Amino acid sequence: MTYTHSKQIVISGTGIWVPEYTITNEELVSSYNLYAEKFNIMHMLEIAAGTMEEKPLSSEKFIEKASGIKSRYAYTKKGILDIDRLCPDIQERKEEELSNQAEIAIHAAQKAMAAAGKTPEDIDAVIVSCTYTQRAYPAIAIEVQQNLGIQGFGFDMLMACSAATFGLNRAYDCLSAGSARCVLIINPEILTPQVNYRDRQSHFIFGDVSTAVIMETAETCTSNNRVDILSTRSMTRYSSSIRSNFGYLSQAANVDPFGPDKLFHQAGKRVFEELSGMTVSHIKDHLAYHDIEPEAVALFFLHQANINMNRMVIKQLFQKDVLQEKAPIVLDQFANTASAGSIIAFHLHHQKLTSGDIGMICSFGAGYSAGSLILRKP
Amino acid sequence: MTYTHSKQIVISGTGIWVPEYTITNEELVSSYNLYAEKFNIMHMLEIAAGTMEEKPLSSEKFIEKASGIKSRYAYTKKGILDIDRLCPDIQERKEEELSNQAEIAIHAAQKAMAAAGKTPEDIDAVIVSCTYTQRAYPAIAIEVQQNLGIQGFGFDMLMACSAATFGLNRAYDCLSAGSARCVLIINPEILTPQVNYRDRQSHFIFGDVSTAVIMETAETCTSNNRVDILSTRSMTRYSSSIRSNFGYLSQAANVDPFGPDKLFHQAGKRVFEELSGMTVSHIKDHLAYHDIEPEAVALFFLHQANINMNRMVIKQLFQKDVLQEKAPIVLDQFANTASAGSIIAFHLHHQKLTSGDIGMICSFGAGYSAGSLILRKP
Repeated sequence: MTYTHSKQIVISGTGIWVPEYTITNEELVSSYNLYAEKFNIMHMLEIAAGTMEEKPLSSEKFIEKASGIKSRYAYTKKGILDIDRLCPDIQERKEEELSNQAEIAIHAAQKAMAAAGKTPEDIDAVIVSCTYTQRAYPAIAIEVQQNLGIQGFGFDMLMACSAATFGLNRAYDCLSAGSARCVLIINPEILTPQVNYRDRQSHFIFGDVSTAVIMETAETCTSNNRVDILSTRSMTRYSSSIRSNFGYLSQAANVDPFGPDKLFHQAGKRVFEELSGMTVSHIKDHLAYHDIEPEAVALFFLHQANINMNRMVIKQLFQKDVLQEKAPIVLDQFANTASAGSIIAFHLHHQKLTSGDIGMICSFGAGYSAGSLILRKP
Repeated sequence: MTYTHSKQIVISGTGIWVPEYTITNEELVSSYNLYAEKFNIMHMLEIAAGTMEEKPLSSEKFIEKASGIKSRYAYTKKGILDIDRLCPDIQERKEEELSNQAEIAIHAAQKAMAAAGKTPEDIDAVIVSCTYTQRAYPAIAIEVQQNLGIQGFGFDMLMACSAATFGLNRAYDCLSAGSARCVLIINPEILTPQVNYRDRQSHFIFGDVSTAVIMETAETCTSNNRVDILSTRSMTRYSSSIRSNFGYLSQAANVDPFGPDKLFHQAGKRVFEELSGMTVSHIKDHLAYHDIEPEAVALFFLHQANINMNRMVIKQLFQKDVLQEKAPIVLDQFANTASAGSIIAFHLHHQKLTSGDIGMICSFGAGYSAGSLILRKP
């Protein structure tokens, strides 16, 4: 359902924290190919006998063609390229120390608060909305809340790639209902630990980043950079085609909690077809609610999973290939950052909107899910 | 912040699913003591040398005095009492099979929908709000949504013991904002896998259960059993005193993902003092917003963690020990069921409210967190 509320709700500031480490396709391919060659040598007898499949090699060309990704950021580089480990090496912190996820959440939050001109006293609610949380409880949002000196309440939401818009849409509800005057929504995505670096089809997909958004009513907003929200919409339709089975029941089931099915895995081709169609319908329906034609939208800030998917979505909306003009791409530099992708695109490009322009943030992904906000620059 | 919305939002139905297995204190103590005796024999040299602590034995008397718990339900009994395992044995299901958590969520949801007289077509949003989810994505809420044939959207929220009220409060926002006409909120709690059955202080605390609530506006409600919501309130204040560090970064940190700190653990005495004080303040403040004295509340439906804590809260509110009359206890039979506790109390006892009566659902727990809804029977 879509709803336009009588209170004008706005985005008044955004912030981003980018890790200091990058991993290029070249580095990733070099590490993966070494791993694959070693694997093939160690299993040459089984491979020759046909009882095991040879690991295919990869190339930068393949990755860039398949996804548009050239590089990605990483919370740490240590361990990821080590072919005997292929997993980031992140030392566990003590319970009294700040968690890794709260740390990067705070970095982005402080920038969003500064951009919106907000102090901790102005904020009533903190939503941490992302793909995984570092622990079950206490919620990461509460740790962030305390560290920033915010009163009110916080909670964690898990919605994978749609976590940003699903978080923003719940913040919209919260502001509409008056349960908060100003909400801080954060997407602290440490995704490299969910990557199966042994899998040629997916080892290049994800990067780490943290983004934050301040939402409030126009009444309290003092920012010159505000963007008004016309309405929000969320939809979900179940599919197992993008999946991570990581969870606390692995011990009860006597299975490896970090086995390949516990990491990110997908039926890529099916996802491409089903999800791009669902997203196009979602966007058209949401715009139609306001009698807005896709052509009337100045900029789309889309989820950043795959450049070919974004091109397909934009082509179906505009009946021509206007990706570059209409939907800024950040995935070449950031890769897929799950929930954060559409927010990075918005953060880096929303200044291009001029007075009266219509914009749209739209995320889509695992679930399946699609979430959107129709924006207007005042 | 507290907010009374112009639309009258109501609870129109609740449902509960109770596992078929029970574990009594007697069974639990018998198993724990066998484990402790075996441990002490195996480590008798270290214990004699003072390099290891002897495992103290437990008793039913201790458990009942410390908590008020007499028994608990379990999703499966297999494995829990086996002293060489001390963990439930739950076979992993295939990706195409219904997940365990969606299964018990659906059981409770169907009962709540029947109680409220709702069909899948009436519902626009499904919130699964609980302590852990079985996997990272797709969200359990979306699996439930599909299985029940509900359109709209679903998402998962994690808020440990306050997950029920935090979920209800977000549903209230959602209904206030008009993002949904009717919301299904479910708390499918499979908690036995988070229990450290080797720990005398906590092995008896949790049980499994699933509860569900239907919330909508008075306008669409056709139930004769509705309860009106006057307002909702959520608060959080960070504490590490109740904690589960279970999370996906264990692999990156090279630590046991199911070590004792990854399971439920708490500083019991500190929690008792700090959390009961915080809860009393929260309840008083919320009631004061409506100029309601605690004495004017007919029934409190409190979180069910510990009978002594509930007695303390009620005593501080009423200045006398009226626990039995004012705040139904279900933890003797169910133990602590995290988010579900206050909903079970409401489900089993809200019929005692007569026209004009004020009631209050209040959960409190890890975070710290406290969430409440002030109710009036029309």
